[in-house]
Amino acid sequence: MAKEVTNREDNYSQWYNNLVVKADLAENSAVRGCMVIKPYGYAIWEKMHEQLDRMFKETGHVNAYFPLFIPKSFLSREAEHVEGFAKECAVVTHHRLMKDPNGNGVVVDPDARLEEELVVRPTSETIIWNTYKNWIKSYRDLPILVNQWANVVRWEMRTRLFLRTAEFLWQEGHTAHATKIEAIQEAEKMVNVYARFAREYMAMPVVIGTKSEHERFAGALETFCIEAMMQDGKALQAGTSHFLGQNFAKAFDVQFANKEGKLDYVWATSWGVSTRLMGGLIMAHSDNEGLVLPPKLAPIQVVMVPIYKGDEELSQMKEYFQKIGKELASLGISYKIDDRDNVRSGFKFAEWELKGVPVRLTVGQRDIDKGMVEIARRDTREKGETPREGIAQHIQKLLDDIQANIYRKALDYRAAKTRKVDDWEEFKVEIEKGGFLLCHWDGTPETEARIQEETKATIRCIPLDTDVIKEEGKCIYSGRPSHQRVIFARAY
Amino acid sequence: MAKEVTNREDNYSQWYNNLVVKADLAENSAVRGCMVIKPYGYAIWEKMHEQLDRMFKETGHVNAYFPLFIPKSFLSREAEHVEGFAKECAVVTHHRLMKDPNGNGVVVDPDARLEEELVVRPTSETIIWNTYKNWIKSYRDLPILVNQWANVVRWEMRTRLFLRTAEFLWQEGHTAHATKIEAIQEAEKMVNVYARFAREYMAMPVVIGTKSEHERFAGALETFCIEAMMQDGKALQAGTSHFLGQNFAKAFDVQFANKEGKLDYVWATSWGVSTRLMGGLIMAHSDNEGLVLPPKLAPIQVVMVPIYKGDEELSQMKEYFQKIGKELASLGISYKIDDRDNVRSGFKFAEWELKGVPVRLTVGQRDIDKGMVEIARRDTREKGETPREGIAQHIQKLLDDIQANIYRKALDYRAAKTRKVDDWEEFKVEIEKGGFLLCHWDGTPETEARIQEETKATIRCIPLDTDVIKEEGKCIYSGRPSHQRVIFARAY
Repeated sequence: MAKEVTNREDNYSQWYNNLVVKADLAENSAVRGCMVIKPYGYAIWEKMHEQLDRMFKETGHVNAYFPLFIPKSFLSREAEHVEGFAKECAVVTHHRLMKDPNGNGVVVDPDARLEEELVVRPTSETIIWNTYKNWIKSYRDLPILVNQWANVVRWEMRTRLFLRTAEFLWQEGHTAHATKIEAIQEAEKMVNVYARFAREYMAMPVVIGTKSEHERFAGALETFCIEAMMQDGKALQAGTSHFLGQNFAKAFDVQFANKEGKLDYVWATSWGVSTRLMGGLIMAHSDNEGLVLPPKLAPIQVVMVPIYKGDEELSQMKEYFQKIGKELASLGISYKIDDRDNVRSGFKFAEWELKGVPVRLTVGQRDIDKGMVEIARRDTREKGETPREGIAQHIQKLLDDIQANIYRKALDYRAAKTRKVDDWEEFKVEIEKGGFLLCHWDGTPETEARIQEETKATIRCIPLDTDVIKEEGKCIYSGRPSHQRVIFARAY
Repeated sequence: MAKEVTNREDNYSQWYNNLVVKADLAENSAVRGCMVIKPYGYAIWEKMHEQLDRMFKETGHVNAYFPLFIPKSFLSREAEHVEGFAKECAVVTHHRLMKDPNGNGVVVDPDARLEEELVVRPTSETIIWNTYKNWIKSYRDLPILVNQWANVVRWEMRTRLFLRTAEFLWQEGHTAHATKIEAIQEAEKMVNVYARFAREYMAMPVVIGTKSEHERFAGALETFCIEAMMQDGKALQAGTSHFLGQNFAKAFDVQFANKEGKLDYVWATSWGVSTRLMGGLIMAHSDNEGLVLPPKLAPIQVVMVPIYKGDEELSQMKEYFQKIGKELASLGISYKIDDRDNVRSGFKFAEWELKGVPVRLTVGQRDIDKGMVEIARRDTREKGETPREGIAQHIQKLLDDIQANIYRKALDYRAAKTRKVDDWEEFKVEIEKGGFLLCHWDGTPETEARIQEETKATIRCIPLDTDVIKEEGKCIYSGRPSHQRVIFARAY
């Protein structure tokens, strides 16, 4: 089974697609660019959703729900926003089908044309700020700290499961504030929540930074982001948090009376992560045998495989495993007993490795007699024996260890693939090897565009960790003076 | 504040709309027929979602996600289904907007017409069975027990917040089985899950039954449902579970090899409840002061209002409440301390009554000195004093009591408004008074249609509780023989 996965070294892109499909995470649907998220993949997304939702609520946010459709005219209200989002989108023009007069199924009823076309939301700033207009009169109505879990649609030409799909699932926070400083602090707070989630739950190291003007969200004054490095050395933008200034408040005329009783426009942020994180999770850790899931996001943390002869031994072992299962459950550890009788153990091993289950227990009659259990960890693929007595506590520690080890491994990889480059010829050589290049840049969109044109590298971010990059130097391309390094990389 | 709510007796429909808006549950959006679910309303829906999801998982189901869009041709595959769902729906015809050549914002790009139009899912049977085709080869792949939480769109002409909106949130279970009996049992199991949820969590009594052929889901062989009675005596269909036979398997050619190695079509069910339940929850229990929420679904179970003079007393009381809050939290009870200093206590009382918070605590300096707390319950509006000592345990019991009382009250109301009617003239009089009429019916769609035409009453269901209704008699309309009574009512 695992054999059918292409080697990562041979064809990274095919390896990724293989994994997503063979591990039952997702598949392409009959609708161009839209995916089906299968139960195993959805269970991982549910765990992400649950944890992020908890973190949003701990930071004072509440959930709400806004319409799927956006009146076409709303998109034009904010000048930059329309440039960024109106282009490729799903447009609803009619509200009825009718029987084909020629007898071929159904056709669009020409009489059911909408007065104004509706766009399936590519993001919800416009419909939400149109709503906030009625919610905000005074500073006492602020801040509004709302998040929405929803599906959005962007008509992408080239799609890839999880990484870039026409429809995807995400959350979008939309907050409203009385002051500029408060809004900036909110945007920073949320990018930090994302970073903590990526590091502690996805075991994925990320750099926190700001985007260059060119890479900013359409309508934002500042975009904060987290950038991760995949195992092919390419960058993945994993989450963004935008300081929107008063742009949307002005576009939708949202003013409030401040403490002094004067009218002022409201300050805004928006921030989001999506099912794209699934792609990051897969690409950050997996290997040629399949997924490697961090224990904190694994739907099944422990799988138990019996080695048995005949029904009697099987039922004895199931009982044995069920007792272990109870002990695990009492520590909040999820497990599955694989008691299928139509496939061999070797097949089961390969399947659960493919699915990235962090810990596997194997028990045969001899192990039971000895009071021992065979235990294998997915990340290092190490196997060993451990006493039955106290096994749940042992596994609990092991899961923590795996979580930490996966993170460390990714961190080491990133460190090895991150280097300072100060020479343009060297840059062109180094960018081919992948990874993050820390370089000086003169701060102009022109230079940024040239570099992208010549090398396909983009500025992933201007890192906020100034210790690393705050130094005087000369732009790698133009030679003009620069005060800090930025991260260049090729990206998903 | 509460004063602005229309009296239920004066105008039931306006009372309902008032409540939804004034209690901050939802509001109409800029998009025709689509609502905004506000944070307080969404928090209730989240509690429903959470509990239902738990019950689905306990009964062996897993979640997945399927595309928002359905190719137009899919709808035509199942003959009855297309009749039921293709008519009023949102049709995506284009995938791009462009700048208006005349300078007026953006217009649909005529070059971006889709080859095949996409319909925004009104329900997902077709896209899901098209997917299942690839998932099912053998009986070993069955059953598939999948649920999806999603938004759906039905282009309703007359909409009402929560009860009937163009877009709504729901869950839709779609299961696949090797045998007919197993599929029927699944459909029955899920209608029972819905009934248990309605009774135990929503405190809303429901009748479980089957639909007449006319009222069945388009494409189903049998539709099981739960029917509730609102406080105006009208019926609300609160959830449905369909036995679909092999209709969709045949339409999408989904066959499996059974244990004997022979090919057979797969048997199906689908079942769903939606944000319509919010409408039921509101209409089943609320009164002229506002919402009455069953404690198990109340986002805030206890609100605490301090009666104070000056900042010092306020901060003292906040501390006092925080200690009570800790005790409540340790019992899993949610609470809110209303320490606003810009509104009077009377305003706060009215607001929390409007929002249906089950228990209110009020404390002044004298209460603290006495070691007593004033406690008010929302359902009966009774007030009393209770000792500070052991208050959390007291509240825990009180919440159980409120939950039970709300249910009992609704049950009594339903009992009083349910009666057997055996005479057609009497029927026409009684139906005007509202409630459920238990009547004999000859089983023909013609009679059903006549009765609806003449009285606007529909057959809500043929109850499964045969003790109540299994008796010989004569059809109320045609006089023909009948073997059981069915429920007639006017419905939402």
